[in-house]
Amino acid sequence: MAASAAAAEVSNRRVTLKRYVTGFPAEDDMEVVAATARLAVPPGSAAAVVKNLYLSCDPYMRGRMSRHDEASYVPDFVPGEVLTTFGVSKVVESGHPGYKPGDLVWGMTGCEEYTLVTNPETLFRISHPEFPLSYYTGVLGMPGLTAYVGFFDVAKPKKGEYVFVSAASGAVGQLVGQLAKITGCYVVGSAGSDEKVNLLKTKFGFDNAFNYKKEHDLNAALKRCFPEGIDIYFENVGGAMLDAVLLNMRLRGRVSMCGLISQYNLEEPEGVRNLFCVVAKRIRMEGFIVMDYFGTYGKFEEEMAGYLKEGKITYVEDVVEGIENTPAALIGLFHGRNVGKQLVAVARE
Amino acid sequence: MAASAAAAEVSNRRVTLKRYVTGFPAEDDMEVVAATARLAVPPGSAAAVVKNLYLSCDPYMRGRMSRHDEASYVPDFVPGEVLTTFGVSKVVESGHPGYKPGDLVWGMTGCEEYTLVTNPETLFRISHPEFPLSYYTGVLGMPGLTAYVGFFDVAKPKKGEYVFVSAASGAVGQLVGQLAKITGCYVVGSAGSDEKVNLLKTKFGFDNAFNYKKEHDLNAALKRCFPEGIDIYFENVGGAMLDAVLLNMRLRGRVSMCGLISQYNLEEPEGVRNLFCVVAKRIRMEGFIVMDYFGTYGKFEEEMAGYLKEGKITYVEDVVEGIENTPAALIGLFHGRNVGKQLVAVARE
Repeated sequence: MAASAAAAEVSNRRVTLKRYVTGFPAEDDMEVVAATARLAVPPGSAAAVVKNLYLSCDPYMRGRMSRHDEASYVPDFVPGEVLTTFGVSKVVESGHPGYKPGDLVWGMTGCEEYTLVTNPETLFRISHPEFPLSYYTGVLGMPGLTAYVGFFDVAKPKKGEYVFVSAASGAVGQLVGQLAKITGCYVVGSAGSDEKVNLLKTKFGFDNAFNYKKEHDLNAALKRCFPEGIDIYFENVGGAMLDAVLLNMRLRGRVSMCGLISQYNLEEPEGVRNLFCVVAKRIRMEGFIVMDYFGTYGKFEEEMAGYLKEGKITYVEDVVEGIENTPAALIGLFHGRNVGKQLVAVARE
Repeated sequence: MAASAAAAEVSNRRVTLKRYVTGFPAEDDMEVVAATARLAVPPGSAAAVVKNLYLSCDPYMRGRMSRHDEASYVPDFVPGEVLTTFGVSKVVESGHPGYKPGDLVWGMTGCEEYTLVTNPETLFRISHPEFPLSYYTGVLGMPGLTAYVGFFDVAKPKKGEYVFVSAASGAVGQLVGQLAKITGCYVVGSAGSDEKVNLLKTKFGFDNAFNYKKEHDLNAALKRCFPEGIDIYFENVGGAMLDAVLLNMRLRGRVSMCGLISQYNLEEPEGVRNLFCVVAKRIRMEGFIVMDYFGTYGKFEEEMAGYLKEGKITYVEDVVEGIENTPAALIGLFHGRNVGKQLVAVARE
């Protein structure tokens, strides 16, 4: 397929942000717009046109739906413009010598059917197409690397330690729990439904799990699950759970701060009151952003592919069909409707 | 002076806890009691009787005045019993072969004139009696080591970094600021009076300082002092200051969590709401307890003695005369009445 002035013009439905959001976002804050795309790169440019196959729905995207005065680690969305997200794509046209039509890649792309990627070097090549390609939005993509570096590089686990994971059936949590088991840790997870709790225990091999919505007293729930206390907390939720965890941390415990999904839709975040535990128990709380570790992706991909092949890691995803269902899938994430990694299948080939 | 059955019985005024405290402590929660001491060690024991010269008043003692269900890093005081604290003492009698009358030591002792130390190995020898001995309750003692390890071992500063210190004219803060200057950092401190702010700028060499009680908006005050943001926050106060600091931290900043004095007298600690900054800016917040570093004291003492001799470190203390004034000195700490390191001079020889 050669780039040419007579390049095909195709339908290109896209998801745009309608307005900046405060508080809980609604489907209506986004819009699915009918548009078209030319399957051609501008003459002389090193861009690539990709066909998007799978789009990732991730909690951090909530932050991008609001306007921030100061630059954060990822830019805000712009009202009227297409949302961007990590996705799995196939190269359709390329002006970049390193990419040719048919190449499978994952990386930042648009929430649309086709995207003109102006800087294809930001995309990662898919080295293991023998796995479902959707895995590259999760276990073999950004959330997988997040779990890996947040657990190993930030929390620095040792065999036999006590590990707690919140939002434990989500894209990142389910992997952290299994990596902790591979490391020889004792692992407990929390999730927001009995179905998810059951998944943690029966499918992901967590030693124990609880439904935080059914616990009147999170401190008591953690004491029940961790009579010896917690060495590592993989933090995905924040707020009241973090406060309860701090009371139950052991000496020199580590809190790997991955995300705070319980706080993202609040006008003002909940206050965390038990920070004196950080002093008294010599706790290390450390935040991280997976983008800082993208240079290690190749090594990670090989290791994780190995675990998947050996059956040491199991992976559950929640796939919504059709680009038009992206807003619902994204909003569902903040209501905990997804079971496993939430993604949108835009096209299967 | 030999231990004997005919040992002298001397007056031994002591400060006891009258009752467990909730909220703000008052002088009346303690009692100065007339008692006597025998200047002899029990036959066959390895204890030592020490004469207390200087007693240290430190913020962490507030925690010990309340009853805790769970053991902390330091035991609670016991109503009716003498308070304990770090102090500078002279050995009067010793059943321990390593200590003899006249030895100068510092370490955990009673808030009283004479103390029977059952385990003298917990005491540190004073190697530099050429300095005022009171320095061993501060710059050459526990607070000095606290500043040293909290800054170097926990915060891991680099030359040129931006450092903020709260409670900056206190025993620990004044030293952190000066150690930061020695390291080649830019240092700003906050304190609770114009007199203290002046001390920071004119005596301790801080690059800038502000009176937090006069600032309506701590965030704005920090932005004014740190247009480029903060690399290291040496945390002595907690609460609203921590929340404002988090907004102003730079990428990969570090918060060395030494203490949270603004929170110690509250029934319920203030909530800290800006923890998402820890994720977004990859911040490390780490607590420490100086006791974990006591094994490094000898090395620290030599280094700090060197700085003092070279005039690289200046030190200000707030000395109250007489054991009977210990309750007032201790309570004054929580009202910020002290200027510099608060201590009580019990005896001068």
